Formats: sequence, C-alpha cells, structure tokens
Amino acid sequence: MPTDHIEAQIAFLAEADRLKSVLRASRLIDGSRHENSAEHSWHVMLYAFVLAEHAPEGVRVDRVLRMLLLHDIVEIDAGDAPIHGKVDHAAMAAKEAAAADRLFGLLPPSQAAEFRALWDEFEAAETPDARYAKAIDRLQTPIANLASGGGTWAEYSVTLEQMDARVGTPITRGAPTLWDWLRPQIAAFFARTDS
Amino acid sequence: MPTDHIEAQIAFLAEADRLKSVLRASRLIDGSRHENSAEHSWHVMLYAFVLAEHAPEGVRVDRVLRMLLLHDIVEIDAGDAPIHGKVDHAAMAAKEAAAADRLFGLLPPSQAAEFRALWDEFEAAETPDARYAKAIDRLQTPIANLASGGGTWAEYSVTLEQMDARVGTPITRGAPTLWDWLRPQIAAFFARTDS
Repeated sequence: MPTDHIEAQIAFLAEADRLKSVLRASRLIDGSRHENSAEHSWHVMLYAFVLAEHAPEGVRVDRVLRMLLLHDIVEIDAGDAPIHGKVDHAAMAAKEAAAADRLFGLLPPSQAAEFRALWDEFEAAETPDARYAKAIDRLQTPIANLASGGGTWAEYSVTLEQMDARVGTPITRGAPTLWDWLRPQIAAFFARTDS
Repeated sequence: MPTDHIEAQIAFLAEADRLKSVLRASRLIDGSRHENSAEHSWHVMLYAFVLAEHAPEGVRVDRVLRMLLLHDIVEIDAGDAPIHGKVDHAAMAAKEAAAADRLFGLLPPSQAAEFRALWDEFEAAETPDARYAKAIDRLQTPIANLASGGGTWAEYSVTLEQMDARVGTPITRGAPTLWDWLRPQIAAFFARTDS
C-alpha cells in the first residue's frame, strides 16, 4: 500500500469532519435546530437514490451520488450561502474555488484532480448527471418546508415568483416531472399563507 | 409519473429526516458535541469513496455507497448500539428487523424489497461489498478517536484486546490493508495511555 497516499487521504477525511459544524438556514423538519451541511449531504443523496425513477433518461445515479457526496465540502472554508439570502455570487464562487483548491488539494494529486473534476461538473450544471444532482439539491428544503409549516420561507419573506426563479428553474432543468409534482403544492401553500 | 409512487417516496424521505436526531456515542473530532447517525452516514460514504483503492479486488464501490447510504436508517426506531457498550445482540437484531419492516415499508413495494435486500446484505456481511462497507463503518470512529486524544475509548474503558476483537476483526475481513495500517497506531496510543 502506498503509505503517503493513505496519510493524505486520512488528513482529508479528518478535515471533512468540519462539514458537520457548517449550519444551513434550513431547520430539521421537527424544527428542533438548524440543519448542518454533512447531514444535508446524506439526505440529498437519499433523495437522489429514492427518486431515481423520476430522473430524465440517461442520468447515471451512481455518478450523481458521488457528486452529492462531495458537493458541499467547499463550505468548510466558504460557508453556506442561503438560497433566499442576499449573496454576492461572484465573490462566493471565488471563495468556493479557493476552498476546492485547498480541500481537494489535501488528497493525493490524481484523486484531487478526479474530485475537483466531479465538483466542477456539478457546479457547471451542464451534464444531465449534474443537472439532476442540482435539482435534487434544490428539492429537499421546499419539501421540508411544506412538512413543517413554511420553515425558511417566512423567515426570508419568500414569494412564489422567487420560488419559480430560484428553485423551479434548476429543478425543471434537471428533473422536470418532480417540479410538475411539487409546484402546485408550493403554490397552494403560498396562496393559503398570503391570505 | 405514478403519483402514488412519489407520495410514498416523499413520506419515506421525510421520515428519514429523524436520523439526524439519533445520537451516537462518538463525538465530532473537535469534541464539541456527539455525532448523529445521518452525518455519520455521509462521512462513512466519503471514507468508502476516498479509500476505494485499498478495497480488496472485486469490491464495487457504488454498491458499497448505496449500502452505507441506507445502513443506519433502522436506528430511527431501534436507536444506536455503541460498539463498546453492553448490548443484547439478539434483542437488538430483532428491533432492527422490525424497524426495517416499518421504515422500508413506507416505500413503494418493489423499492422496499430492493432497499431491504441491500440492508440485509450489509447486515449479513458475507459478500465482498458488504464486508468492505462494514470495515469502513468500523474505521471512522477509531480514526476520529486517534485525532481527538482518545474519544470514546476512555469513556468506555476500552482495551487493545477489545479493539482487536470488535474493530480489528471486521476491518480485517473487509479491508485488511487498512487494519495493517491502523493497528500499530492504535497499539501505540494504548501503550501511551496505559503507562
């Protein structure tokens, strides 16, 4: 076994432990506390696997799981940018790229390049696998919000138009039948709470 | 789209949120709090993916990731049994089987059967994929303990002989080169703390 390989891999895996302390804007469905990005990553992988039959033809779910496994690791350095918060997207992208350099750079070089390529593919959201991964990443929070009486929507004064733009657009690009199913429920919820 | 399918799938995914509130005996590496089983599941999937080159010939890492994604969901009903705690293993196995019936039973029938078969394969630890998955599941906590000055080892008064039996045996069965690498570090740690 190449000992220098495993030492580098273990250093990366130990550093990854810190993703458990990155908090997201969203809460657990029971409202008890904010969700962290490590448990969120597990949950979106479960979503991607369970809902695979609703993915467009040609999506390879195993590649999607690998992307989602890695997709938030950059938040260890860059933090989480709430989808409904005010964010300077160019500054955030630069911070995340620097985080990817440092964090994936802990791995042996060939593995660092492989992980970086997967993460870049996810971020670019151009391949069917990356689009499905992005769609699933956007799907989890609205479903939790519907199950818990609104969640982050009230906190950030979100409108249905914002939901269509920020959530509907990426879900439609990656998993259109899931947005067809979800959108009427979100519209009904916003109609009730606006009245 | 079969609407009854997606309703059942979303019910399962919402119920799975509760795994984020199941606490394990182990702590985060920074010691700040106990680890929960959802973030643990993410972390062991990352271990399995990063360390794949150390898996025995023939292990299919994508199947391993699917097993690890599902492996702890039964803890929503059955709770976590600490590896160094006093556990009635037959009673725990019966509780976990009942939990698998209820939780996977939330899914559409064909998917429930597929998930149950994956979980049963993991539990039986007889195939190379399941043995590697079990080895990785055992590997994460000792590495965290080494990184954080002992962690659960002191709390449970663990001995090196217990580590060889409870941790060394399953890691040797599923990923022997990883135990060859880890065992001397654990032995050195116990030698220091015994003196």
